[in-house]
Amino acid sequence: PHNSNTNVRVSLPVVCFVWQTAMVILFGVFIRYNAESDVRWREFRRTNNISSDIENDFYFRYPSFQDVHVMVFVGFGFLMTFLKRYSFGAVGFNFLIAAFGLQWALLMQGWFSSLDTDGKIKIGVENLINADFCVAGCLIAYGAVLGKVSPVQLLVLTLFGITLYAVEEYIILSILHARDAGGSMVIHTFGAYYGLAISWMLYRPNLEQSSRLQGSVYHSDVFAMIGTLFLWMFWPSFNSALTDHGDGQHRAVINTYLSLASTVLTSVAVSSLFQKQGKLDMVHIQNATLAGGVAVGTAAEFMLMPYGSLIVGFFCGIISTLGYIYLTPFLEKHLKIQDTCGVHNLHAMPGVIGGVVGAITAAAATETVYGKEGLINTFDFDGDFKGTTPSRQGGMQAAALCVALVFGIGGGIFVGCILRLPIWGDPADEDCFDDQFYWEVNQEGNIASEILPEDEESVEPVLEYNNHTIRNKNVYVSNLYLICETKQLCFVSNTFLYFQ
Amino acid sequence: PHNSNTNVRVSLPVVCFVWQTAMVILFGVFIRYNAESDVRWREFRRTNNISSDIENDFYFRYPSFQDVHVMVFVGFGFLMTFLKRYSFGAVGFNFLIAAFGLQWALLMQGWFSSLDTDGKIKIGVENLINADFCVAGCLIAYGAVLGKVSPVQLLVLTLFGITLYAVEEYIILSILHARDAGGSMVIHTFGAYYGLAISWMLYRPNLEQSSRLQGSVYHSDVFAMIGTLFLWMFWPSFNSALTDHGDGQHRAVINTYLSLASTVLTSVAVSSLFQKQGKLDMVHIQNATLAGGVAVGTAAEFMLMPYGSLIVGFFCGIISTLGYIYLTPFLEKHLKIQDTCGVHNLHAMPGVIGGVVGAITAAAATETVYGKEGLINTFDFDGDFKGTTPSRQGGMQAAALCVALVFGIGGGIFVGCILRLPIWGDPADEDCFDDQFYWEVNQEGNIASEILPEDEESVEPVLEYNNHTIRNKNVYVSNLYLICETKQLCFVSNTFLYFQ
Amino acid sequence: PHNSNTNVRVSLPVVCFVWQTAMVILFGVFIRYNAESDVRWREFRRTNNISSDIENDFYFRYPSFQDVHVMVFVGFGFLMTFLKRYSFGAVGFNFLIAAFGLQWALLMQGWFSSLDTDGKIKIGVENLINADFCVAGCLIAYGAVLGKVSPVQLLVLTLFGITLYAVEEYIILSILHARDAGGSMVIHTFGAYYGLAISWMLYRPNLEQSSRLQGSVYHSDVFAMIGTLFLWMFWPSFNSALTDHGDGQHRAVINTYLSLASTVLTSVAVSSLFQKQGKLDMVHIQNATLAGGVAVGTAAEFMLMPYGSLIVGFFCGIISTLGYIYLTPFLEKHLKIQDTCGVHNLHAMPGVIGGVVGAITAAAATETVYGKEGLINTFDFDGDFKGTTPSRQGGMQAAALCVALVFGIGGGIFVGCILRLPIWGDPADEDCFDDQFYWEVNQEGNIASEILPEDEESVEPVLEYNNHTIRNKNVYVSNLYLICETKQLCFVSNTFLYFQ
Repeated sequence: PHNSNTNVRVSLPVVCFVWQTAMVILFGVFIRYNAESDVRWREFRRTNNISSDIENDFYFRYPSFQDVHVMVFVGFGFLMTFLKRYSFGAVGFNFLIAAFGLQWALLMQGWFSSLDTDGKIKIGVENLINADFCVAGCLIAYGAVLGKVSPVQLLVLTLFGITLYAVEEYIILSILHARDAGGSMVIHTFGAYYGLAISWMLYRPNLEQSSRLQGSVYHSDVFAMIGTLFLWMFWPSFNSALTDHGDGQHRAVINTYLSLASTVLTSVAVSSLFQKQGKLDMVHIQNATLAGGVAVGTAAEFMLMPYGSLIVGFFCGIISTLGYIYLTPFLEKHLKIQDTCGVHNLHAMPGVIGGVVGAITAAAATETVYGKEGLINTFDFDGDFKGTTPSRQGGMQAAALCVALVFGIGGGIFVGCILRLPIWGDPADEDCFDDQFYWEVNQEGNIASEILPEDEESVEPVLEYNNHTIRNKNVYVSNLYLICETKQLCFVSNTFLYFQ
Repeated sequence: PHNSNTNVRVSLPVVCFVWQTAMVILFGVFIRYNAESDVRWREFRRTNNISSDIENDFYFRYPSFQDVHVMVFVGFGFLMTFLKRYSFGAVGFNFLIAAFGLQWALLMQGWFSSLDTDGKIKIGVENLINADFCVAGCLIAYGAVLGKVSPVQLLVLTLFGITLYAVEEYIILSILHARDAGGSMVIHTFGAYYGLAISWMLYRPNLEQSSRLQGSVYHSDVFAMIGTLFLWMFWPSFNSALTDHGDGQHRAVINTYLSLASTVLTSVAVSSLFQKQGKLDMVHIQNATLAGGVAVGTAAEFMLMPYGSLIVGFFCGIISTLGYIYLTPFLEKHLKIQDTCGVHNLHAMPGVIGGVVGAITAAAATETVYGKEGLINTFDFDGDFKGTTPSRQGGMQAAALCVALVFGIGGGIFVGCILRLPIWGDPADEDCFDDQFYWEVNQEGNIASEILPEDEESVEPVLEYNNHTIRNKNVYVSNLYLICETKQLCFVSNTFLYFQ
Repeated sequence: PHNSNTNVRVSLPVVCFVWQTAMVILFGVFIRYNAESDVRWREFRRTNNISSDIENDFYFRYPSFQDVHVMVFVGFGFLMTFLKRYSFGAVGFNFLIAAFGLQWALLMQGWFSSLDTDGKIKIGVENLINADFCVAGCLIAYGAVLGKVSPVQLLVLTLFGITLYAVEEYIILSILHARDAGGSMVIHTFGAYYGLAISWMLYRPNLEQSSRLQGSVYHSDVFAMIGTLFLWMFWPSFNSALTDHGDGQHRAVINTYLSLASTVLTSVAVSSLFQKQGKLDMVHIQNATLAGGVAVGTAAEFMLMPYGSLIVGFFCGIISTLGYIYLTPFLEKHLKIQDTCGVHNLHAMPGVIGGVVGAITAAAATETVYGKEGLINTFDFDGDFKGTTPSRQGGMQAAALCVALVFGIGGGIFVGCILRLPIWGDPADEDCFDDQFYWEVNQEGNIASEILPEDEESVEPVLEYNNHTIRNKNVYVSNLYLICETKQLCFVSNTFLYFQ
């Protein structure tokens, strides 16, 4: 059912313009500033006896927000640049769908959770963080289909992904009243299974035709490390961005920081252990080292204790790395799930672990450790949920994990069906992982014609490569390779050369 | 009038040493810590009844300051690395002139706005932010002349640019009493026209001789995306760094965040619509996506409303991208303005739009929306400006825009005249966009001699290239190209090849 | 005594697993949340009359902490990517040892300074910053031995380095009661001499066998600039992260910002002055521009005055750049110290200068400048140290510098002895600076075999290179070079070519 026409000159602009126009209208109808970002804040301060401007929520959360923002745009974007010829698509489409997604998320999440009595959604920095979180779910899903879909498909994936996320989040946080500070369930489990299910629906039996591009080169691996490190460093901000003021944010940072540190060591250990001659594999270092951050997402704000965080990170580093070594090939071969970035190892498994750890930690919470007040504050046993017991909370956490799984898999199958329609401009199997179908890629060798002597003797084509017949010219430049030839010779590229 | 001697061994060290020495002396005479950074802060706290250290302005502004700092050094620096062989110059000269500029800005802006009764300039974090802002104006100007000037010229451009900026800013903010939180007028309009006027004065009719280097390669485009993304992500901090504590900073962030998101979608739409086969152009993604941040600069702190921000971003994405497609070639061909980075599209037009949006928003401000107190606080209708009406404020905003334009164009023509003197070591037309004239560029091919068999038969030179005659040797390495030849063959380089 | 077997498949996993398990156990026994990160914070607030959550130390220090975190992982990591084929090792091993080091540092520093009456170490954001600082010392040491050691050796270096650091820090800060906000002595002097002493112990007389890899390529220099700029930008956060709330942090930022700006200009000046044709050397721009941040480390929180900071930066830029030009070759030739990154110029000399500047500034402190209260607060003349005079404090600062030197040099010699044991899997002299011995490096040319015609006529090998005999195949791919050959020809690589 695949359509190899990658021309999106109509569909992409139409989708962008129409959707963005819709955003303008919906924002006009629904979105307003909240009390802390509205010009009447000073009156609000007086009315509510807030002693200083610094107690505006902005100052509690803005530094974390910016860190999350960096994770979404630079972290996810650059992490996916590892492919040798899909860096533009990685960082550029990541940029596009995040920019759309955050607007749609402000609306969807707003309707569910920030709707004021006047029917308006009142936004502040917390909504911006939530929108970025919501987008992160879709970017994780992008990781599973990286290089195999068109930008229009990605926008559709995002539209539905954000919608599903908002519903799932509402069920998990408001109805089940589960806690999920860093989104192990809401973001990672949902996002990863959503992407994997889509990838399963879009299975490409002949993807090995693109295998020459499905790998990294030296520099692209270094670019990917930019993404890895910004994700790794700012993950404490991610897990603490929306937790309680004071100790809640403080503790979430410590737990995440420790879990991530522990993951690095066990990822390195397993990577070395399972490779010939003990050499490390950049794929593991780029990805598995982050699993600890995913897996403390739910429990980061709880009294997980520093050693508890280390233990979570310890096992996630092992599991995630083993996943890259054994599970990814297995999924592709036996379950027909092609997972470009290995999101199953980095987000799905650690996300599920995170949900389980969260459920156990919640169920095991005692007044001895938390204090009466601490228990109420941490788990928000207040209002309708006054008197909830920790063990019941543990049950709700477990139920929440199931909801995330169901929404991820079910939503992914549904959206996958839509994305199979032959109208989205996705690439043929042999054109995957190649930027040149959606980007003007600079013809690196176009200088060659300048410096080749004009009297050069031309010969007939001797080679066909990558669908380009080399015509009766003495120089041929493909996106990847500069090919030139004469009686005597020859082609060359960035990295290799042929001659006759 | 061009001097192709790019040796700056005398002029560059002399300028650096003399100017830096001058800075030391002037700082010694004029600059002191302000009350919030001085060791006597605790006394000040008691005297002024400030209840906690956290109300030191430092904690309101330092996170934003660091984001702005990243925009200035990494954002602008890496945005300009897109050229295939001018990355050192892009990021290195950006570094140099910013480091000088911020010192000079502290003095110039200090004399105009932070001079205490004792004749000293008292500095704190707000001054550091202002200095970074001031520098940003000059870095925008650098974008217009990127690759065509010497480092000494850039330092001269910065010296005068900072000076002009400080005067223009004083007129706009203090005399006209206009508001310009994110500097749509003060920074972007001024900086862009300043650079464009200089570029016009330094017009190079034979610049096409460097055309082979006036483009990107795959990796340089990915490096540039680092700059783009850090600018895009941190722009909310830029526009809110100096706004009022509390709601002022909070609202400026929301407006900027939304405007930028909207811009991304319309930039992508137009880029795809106007290219063959709907392919995206990295130049647009790298630059036009930022136009929304420029254009809400003035109005970011006003009650622009979330949908208002989206609308501004919507149109700026379109206009900026169309500018890259149609206006930049037009300016070069018909107005003799060579604008390397397209600052006209990214800063000049959006800056003017931002000024107009600011004037309209200010003029349309009502007590219904702002409240009496809000109106006074937001527009600072206080002291000498007590009782100013919004419509009058709108007029002042419009006048401010004209001041920025006049200073930019007038100042650029004046400084351009100075930079035409044949003493600055600027490159010849055929040497533009090439790092090797100001940087020790690693001789990438120097290993070749090691591995070429010594008994290789030498032949006479067959080629002259890039001013280097290939001498009677079988290997020639230029900065860019490894050339080697024998009876049978051949040269090769990173990207292309010649053979005989 | 060098063992050229670089197989670390046993040793690396064992060390990682055992040490990480030890961390889990020790954390379980010793580490707990402190009052500000514990769930009982609200009780603590009430008991201690803290009026708002925003006065949790978290909000004073978290933005600075994240900046420091970026410096440690991206700053140091990318600064070392300048080598053409050691980027994986630079950024990857930096990641590994930092992740281990911060855990061990939490314990070691905790035992010395955060041990509560119940025998537990209570941690909060300040401990995380301290751990990152401690790690920075070891990463500096890594700079001296970059490319010449195995990851196992690096872990050993880190284990002992952190231990020595904690002792040295305790002596300097607690016993001698010296102040060292940004760690000119504690971090930079100690770390640099520790690394240099190790490098001296591990002297490799035949290192020139790796000289072809001991340099940069164009792109690797741009990657290194990412490290440089993040270090440069966030250095004010580094020097202020642990200073006093309020004016202490504010002033440390201003001093560091100014010193660094000044250093850039003098580094550029000297770099240009001492190179042929005034061309700038990227090594100087990448490194010497940071010397000013090191050198105001101790005095950043003192009343150094803005011009004082400029003066410190001024001279450090000169000294550090001259160090790269003259001293590094001298050290290698005459003292047998091979200093890959030039840490002697960037950290050792500026660190010592910083210690001296700190001692002088402290000794010169007067009540006129500081006020009685300011003097007590700034230098902590309280408790056991009540009534200390500034001149005595100056003496203690000088003594502290000596302690740092002794621990660095002595510790380095001791650890160097251990690292000389032939069990660590370090590379042979000709294998240094080459990622392929510890990393699965992508065989960039492996596509060549696909596109070479199958009927290509093979010939006998004609070349042996880099220990790889070219076998009876027409294509040979090494990690670095694609080599291919036939009757007529030839090999090519990323950067160079051979032919027959």
